[in-house]
Amino acid sequence: MAGLRGANANPTNLIRVMPAEGEEMRKPLDLRVAVQSSGDILARLRDKAPRVHCITNTVAQNFTANVLLAAGAVPSMTTSPEEVGQFAGSADALLVNLGTFDRERAEAIGIALTAAEAARRPWVLDPVLIDRSPMRASLARDLLSREPAALRLNAAEFATLSGHEASADAVGDLAGEYSTVIALSGKTDLVADATRRAMLANGHALMAKITAMGCAASALVAACLAVEADRWHASLAAMTVFGVAGELAGAKAEGPGSFAVAFLDELNRLTPAMLVERARVS
Amino acid sequence: MAGLRGANANPTNLIRVMPAEGEEMRKPLDLRVAVQSSGDILARLRDKAPRVHCITNTVAQNFTANVLLAAGAVPSMTTSPEEVGQFAGSADALLVNLGTFDRERAEAIGIALTAAEAARRPWVLDPVLIDRSPMRASLARDLLSREPAALRLNAAEFATLSGHEASADAVGDLAGEYSTVIALSGKTDLVADATRRAMLANGHALMAKITAMGCAASALVAACLAVEADRWHASLAAMTVFGVAGELAGAKAEGPGSFAVAFLDELNRLTPAMLVERARVS
Amino acid sequence: MAGLRGANANPTNLIRVMPAEGEEMRKPLDLRVAVQSSGDILARLRDKAPRVHCITNTVAQNFTANVLLAAGAVPSMTTSPEEVGQFAGSADALLVNLGTFDRERAEAIGIALTAAEAARRPWVLDPVLIDRSPMRASLARDLLSREPAALRLNAAEFATLSGHEASADAVGDLAGEYSTVIALSGKTDLVADATRRAMLANGHALMAKITAMGCAASALVAACLAVEADRWHASLAAMTVFGVAGELAGAKAEGPGSFAVAFLDELNRLTPAMLVERARVS
Repeated sequence: MAGLRGANANPTNLIRVMPAEGEEMRKPLDLRVAVQSSGDILARLRDKAPRVHCITNTVAQNFTANVLLAAGAVPSMTTSPEEVGQFAGSADALLVNLGTFDRERAEAIGIALTAAEAARRPWVLDPVLIDRSPMRASLARDLLSREPAALRLNAAEFATLSGHEASADAVGDLAGEYSTVIALSGKTDLVADATRRAMLANGHALMAKITAMGCAASALVAACLAVEADRWHASLAAMTVFGVAGELAGAKAEGPGSFAVAFLDELNRLTPAMLVERARVS
Repeated sequence: MAGLRGANANPTNLIRVMPAEGEEMRKPLDLRVAVQSSGDILARLRDKAPRVHCITNTVAQNFTANVLLAAGAVPSMTTSPEEVGQFAGSADALLVNLGTFDRERAEAIGIALTAAEAARRPWVLDPVLIDRSPMRASLARDLLSREPAALRLNAAEFATLSGHEASADAVGDLAGEYSTVIALSGKTDLVADATRRAMLANGHALMAKITAMGCAASALVAACLAVEADRWHASLAAMTVFGVAGELAGAKAEGPGSFAVAFLDELNRLTPAMLVERARVS
Repeated sequence: MAGLRGANANPTNLIRVMPAEGEEMRKPLDLRVAVQSSGDILARLRDKAPRVHCITNTVAQNFTANVLLAAGAVPSMTTSPEEVGQFAGSADALLVNLGTFDRERAEAIGIALTAAEAARRPWVLDPVLIDRSPMRASLARDLLSREPAALRLNAAEFATLSGHEASADAVGDLAGEYSTVIALSGKTDLVADATRRAMLANGHALMAKITAMGCAASALVAACLAVEADRWHASLAAMTVFGVAGELAGAKAEGPGSFAVAFLDELNRLTPAMLVERARVS
């Protein structure tokens, strides 16, 4: 990740939270507060078992459902226009993933968003591979204006969406412009809103060798939003859970096949205490 | 599971088969007969490799196909209205699962059922998540009137379908009303028709942490119906095979990821003798 | 596989390449050349990370994507008519798999082929289960006339397509007629064009117990075609990589579940040197 924004940036290993006007810059403690908050959110996820409705691509559906179950959430996956309103309206959060996008999904997204908005449920946008499809990129821009609680994507997708390289500044700016939180996946993850940023060093190289990893991370962001009103803390918690589970799985895996298996095992047994202990947030 | 129906019910650990009029109540032997029959059905499944056509949701397709292969059956999965009649008509059994229900599936189900009826093939209804979708529940009721050989569901789906809590009596009554067999999945499974009931104590808690487990169980019921004319015995065999494989897998697994892997391994190597030895049917 | 074609056939354990007119029959060296070429193609696959767009069935999408990633390629999977032209036109190779064939896929195939042809990208046809669907078989015949670079199928599919049993002669004849390469999967694989043939003895019995194995092999043929202009060498390399990874996985697996996991692990760590050492090509 590129350097931090503005004059307050400095390269120490602390979480940096941009001060609101008149507020002092927060100090080292913030890092521990944010990590502790991630642990609390994981505990609530296990306890409340929120329903997450996923409009996601057919490649990712099975793995995404298993990730949500392992994390403690309850997935549903229909994309049928006739039913998706019922499912989205009775879920605690919604994921809109643009992979394997088709006419049915286009129609389903509109209906599901209307239902989620009516029920005041948070939703996450995952603009998969918009760097490969101008039509999909255009749709992603339209959807951004419907105010997702969070946006999860990678650097190529961010560049397509914003027209800028994925620096921490550019990510924070886009998050501010759309009043959302952006979780940018990469070698180091970045979670940013208009004023707050954290970088996550957890994770494992094999995460890039298994399909649907990013899609499943987005679903986990939705699950955390269902149990935490602060969208930045919710997004950070999801990405930390994901990264720590990936790191633990990577230590056991002999390749991408055994990694995906170990990832579900580790995610399932990850405790808030383990999460807090292992999180590498800066 | 709630107590048994009527005056003959008693709480011993035996299978109880309701006597037809003028027939004496069958005794302990029945348990062994039913379990032995399950072993025989598994042997025939391995031997005959029946074709099972599955109209099932996109989340469950891959795992369901692998479960059928591990059990010895040959899966096919198309939902295209243009082709599904050919596939269903040339299969030995049909699964109709209402997950990720859409227009194409709605059309495909009608065509596939007509083909299966013409070829006199048994079919299984799995009314996935009808407790979340009134439209789907209404469709499930319509489909029940087309006489599925078996109905596999969980307690919430049963309650939505029947309007009653899932007691053994209520399940038996609904099975009798529609001349079908009901396989109710839960901590203990129940397999019931109008006069016969068995409870299965096999299985493992991790079965609830992997998506598509119930969907795959329904597919296995269809596979067993393809090699056994007595629908109650076929359904009981499928659920027993499923539960015993789950129990064996649970003993090896470190979480849901390794559980799903071990489940396919154990299902693949399960022998009729192991099944008979391990079945906990009452 | 049945015997070799014509007068030059002899049953020694060498690769046999039919001599063009006036050319002498090539000798034992050819076997080593072809195997070495497969190693080189695998090295280029790792190095170039070609994009492979897959129009494939929903059962196979996840496993196929993971196989491509493990081999070093970059998968995409949309079947949306609105987008598939963009994806196919910007990919390095295209797979057209007829499984779970539906209206959207029918439309997508036409668009994707036009885009691939315009960009002069190779494409692979996998006529899944055409032995079960006359409509699909008819479509496969139409598609053959659009000159796929390679055709991957099994014996039953070949028989349906050609009207002949899958002998080496019949396979070579069909390949010649359509100026394509045919990779026929079976206990022993056969890779043939009009003049060249090789048989592959690698592989493992568990490959037939996991769904989507054949579909994923076809995707790997497409990936190899993206980095090797000689279509016969590309197809042979893909099938050899697949068979060797299967053999290595089979040595570790306890059943189909652990086989699929080990397959991805072994494919991911397979080196050109290991491939050359283990290939059993004749």
